[in-house]
Amino acid sequence: MKWMVAACGASILAAALHAGAAELELQVEKYRAAHETDIVARLDELTRLKSVAADPAGLQATADRLQQWLVQRGFEALQLGRGGGGPPTVFGSLKAPGAHRTVIFYAHYDGQPVTPSQWSSDPFVPVMRSGALNSREHEVDWSDVRGPNAHHPFDPEWRLFGRAVSDDKASIVAFLAAFDALKAIGKSPSVNLKVLWEGEEEAGSPHLADTLRDNRALLAADLILIGDGPVHQSRRPMIYFGARGVMSLEATIYGPVRALHDGHYGNWVPNPAVMAATLIAQMRDDEGRILIPGFADGVRPLTPAEQLAIRNLPVIDDDLKREFGIGRSEGSESLASSLMRPALNVRGIRAGQVGESAANAIPTTAVISFDFRLVPDQSPAAVRAAVERFLQARGWTLVDGEPDLAARLKSRRLIRLSWEAGYPALRADLSSPQAKAVIAAASNAASAPVVVLPMMGASVPLYLFADVLQLPVIGLPIVNHDNNQHAANENLRLQNLWDGINTYAALMADLNW
Amino acid sequence: MKWMVAACGASILAAALHAGAAELELQVEKYRAAHETDIVARLDELTRLKSVAADPAGLQATADRLQQWLVQRGFEALQLGRGGGGPPTVFGSLKAPGAHRTVIFYAHYDGQPVTPSQWSSDPFVPVMRSGALNSREHEVDWSDVRGPNAHHPFDPEWRLFGRAVSDDKASIVAFLAAFDALKAIGKSPSVNLKVLWEGEEEAGSPHLADTLRDNRALLAADLILIGDGPVHQSRRPMIYFGARGVMSLEATIYGPVRALHDGHYGNWVPNPAVMAATLIAQMRDDEGRILIPGFADGVRPLTPAEQLAIRNLPVIDDDLKREFGIGRSEGSESLASSLMRPALNVRGIRAGQVGESAANAIPTTAVISFDFRLVPDQSPAAVRAAVERFLQARGWTLVDGEPDLAARLKSRRLIRLSWEAGYPALRADLSSPQAKAVIAAASNAASAPVVVLPMMGASVPLYLFADVLQLPVIGLPIVNHDNNQHAANENLRLQNLWDGINTYAALMADLNW
Repeated sequence: MKWMVAACGASILAAALHAGAAELELQVEKYRAAHETDIVARLDELTRLKSVAADPAGLQATADRLQQWLVQRGFEALQLGRGGGGPPTVFGSLKAPGAHRTVIFYAHYDGQPVTPSQWSSDPFVPVMRSGALNSREHEVDWSDVRGPNAHHPFDPEWRLFGRAVSDDKASIVAFLAAFDALKAIGKSPSVNLKVLWEGEEEAGSPHLADTLRDNRALLAADLILIGDGPVHQSRRPMIYFGARGVMSLEATIYGPVRALHDGHYGNWVPNPAVMAATLIAQMRDDEGRILIPGFADGVRPLTPAEQLAIRNLPVIDDDLKREFGIGRSEGSESLASSLMRPALNVRGIRAGQVGESAANAIPTTAVISFDFRLVPDQSPAAVRAAVERFLQARGWTLVDGEPDLAARLKSRRLIRLSWEAGYPALRADLSSPQAKAVIAAASNAASAPVVVLPMMGASVPLYLFADVLQLPVIGLPIVNHDNNQHAANENLRLQNLWDGINTYAALMADLNW
Repeated sequence: MKWMVAACGASILAAALHAGAAELELQVEKYRAAHETDIVARLDELTRLKSVAADPAGLQATADRLQQWLVQRGFEALQLGRGGGGPPTVFGSLKAPGAHRTVIFYAHYDGQPVTPSQWSSDPFVPVMRSGALNSREHEVDWSDVRGPNAHHPFDPEWRLFGRAVSDDKASIVAFLAAFDALKAIGKSPSVNLKVLWEGEEEAGSPHLADTLRDNRALLAADLILIGDGPVHQSRRPMIYFGARGVMSLEATIYGPVRALHDGHYGNWVPNPAVMAATLIAQMRDDEGRILIPGFADGVRPLTPAEQLAIRNLPVIDDDLKREFGIGRSEGSESLASSLMRPALNVRGIRAGQVGESAANAIPTTAVISFDFRLVPDQSPAAVRAAVERFLQARGWTLVDGEPDLAARLKSRRLIRLSWEAGYPALRADLSSPQAKAVIAAASNAASAPVVVLPMMGASVPLYLFADVLQLPVIGLPIVNHDNNQHAANENLRLQNLWDGINTYAALMADLNW
């Protein structure tokens, strides 16, 4: 039995589509069951191509392979942005007979940098394991499960480990498998298909805006679907309609020019570690409340529909507390509600020494690394201005480079600020025709009610697609939440890949508005 | 002309001693001028013996050499505490004809650990330079200045660089040179002399209490003079009558069991870096005020004589602010007054990552390294109890080992405390007969008024001598304040060594009460 989403008034449409969708899904699953080895082999091959920022040749090789796969399937395929200083963006386009809508499927083929010493296996030599790490899992030689007699050779709880396997190569492989399944079944897409596979999302997408601007005509469409991000922690499929923005700040607070014996000078020479602590405590409390005046100026309230969607989210807070080993959460709100607010996170603090190296000394500097999560309609410029006004009101002298002695001597509190501009948030309309159509199509393919999230807590530069291409943006992630995204031992749970193929097939076959 | 101290009512005595003292000093200086090369060579030799905790053989070799030098001078000399687990303490004793008082001269022959990469030259191969580092100084080959025709071959602003050269080997060399000078002049000491040269002061003197207890009879005396520490920043000679106590604490604050993407979990999963900042700000403000209830219980007020001595100290605050590049001091008191209070210093903070490595994540732990400076009559046990009560009142669960998952889940705020017990302060009577006698004798030898400091801000375990040996304790440092003690490029300014020889000679020759 299939589930339908009840949150967004899409149930009538979903019910109408349901009968045909169930039949389609059976056929897609049959195709997938017969081709699991090929599908996993494609992901394995793609993971072996080292598409990380440190390896431009690996990125290029990946782009070439992706373009080839698109051409093999009849797409018109190009590499955009070549020679622009970054890796190419792979673009593909395929007209569907009779379709009057065009949908772009976005994903990125680059992965986060790796620290191989932290991995249990080579990040670029995928390893199949029978489950998550530290779950009494064992390694699986999946070449053994090939063969004509194996009906369901892959246990769906198995996981493939490797860099970018989940973030986002799984999305690309699921798209291709769904396309192949529809073709095998003889079902034509209901919309014209475009793909946009970026190669430097993990480096902050520095060339994406230019690529979009330079190729507006090519990228004409009615909707862009974002394949990035994990599904809900409840393992239910998820659709998101926005993402928080992000910006970061590194602050260096200056004490004496050299470390001083605190017996001789403590209590008198200002201690930058204490100044840093005091400053952080003035900026936010340990319940997550931001205390900077004006920081939240321009925050747009949630609409009633968004509030309802938040209330309908599966409650996983107690499970997560156990998983993370925490005895409380900050504030009194649920996780889901907390993520709808702006956030001020301390990523790190460095001052003096601790442990064996700790000397009885006053440190020379304290460094605090912050990141801020923005919500609509905060702007990075306004947040920066609010933080700087706050610091000045508290008596800080702000500098943007290493201060000289004169600057030190005339400042009671001296702080060096290094901003990374970041980008704003996006939260799109849950009730648009496109939104209803995507929710309906995804619900038909899903084996559990689809989670409708008004905005992800994490940041994806969705605003760019909205701003530059003037397109509705909807997020449609497929991978498991516990995929170790951005960390060592990134992995993909096979059931998530299977579900993702169903979802993509349903969207390609049924999407319409 | 000689200066006399006016602070402590010792001026009459000082005046009476003055005439003979001036004559003595001339003779000591003449002796020293003729033997400068030998004296510096002795310090050079001693510095080449690697007497650091990491080199037990070097410590033993140093002790052997020191014992030899005492024996050569007619002292009865022993190594105390051999086989007790630490390096030996060198003890020497010499009766003076007709003397009715016995004075112990204490110093330590071990030096702080070294990080050779931070040094400009090998820490154990002394280098003479024409001044402090970064003062357009140049290296001096002082073997060139030997020779019968050089009247004053050593520029007194030259500095010898090497580990322990200043802290405390200069004190030992000055004692020996002063003794040799008196002998050459034919002047007998006015007191019976004992020396106590410790080999693990820089490791926290873990065996000193036992050594003192085991050798009470041998160490019978009327006064102990401590050769450790620098003279006043004004370069005036200094006598101190106490030292603050010290204890330290490393606190680990627990967040989630693994680092979490702060986009998905920030504002909800408690951030240990923020908890650490909040805690520090609650413990003390950035003006140096300690906010822990009961922390200052038992603080003994300064006596009128001590207050007068503080007011009479040379004011160097503005000079130091320029030297240290700071635009303000904590609080509104002078440096001298600030150091009479207890202090809470943050030695270091470590949480998450900063700079290039900063990830958008909630750190798993925050570590804070504290040290506390105690004043009479605070006890380390009472300070520890006050800190722990404070934490419990603020809702912290205290543990002394790595917490398991159950402990994490049931604690809203979890902190691991690692205490290092430390020791209490000592502040002795400025007006005792011994105090007056030492001030008078040192004033006679000094080329500027002697600074009388009721208590050093830094910590030396003076309380042990007072507690175990029941002796009056007076500090008589000789080395320059800018000697880079405990850091790289430790150095001794030669004029301080010359002055120190005068001071020791005056004390041996004139001390009486």
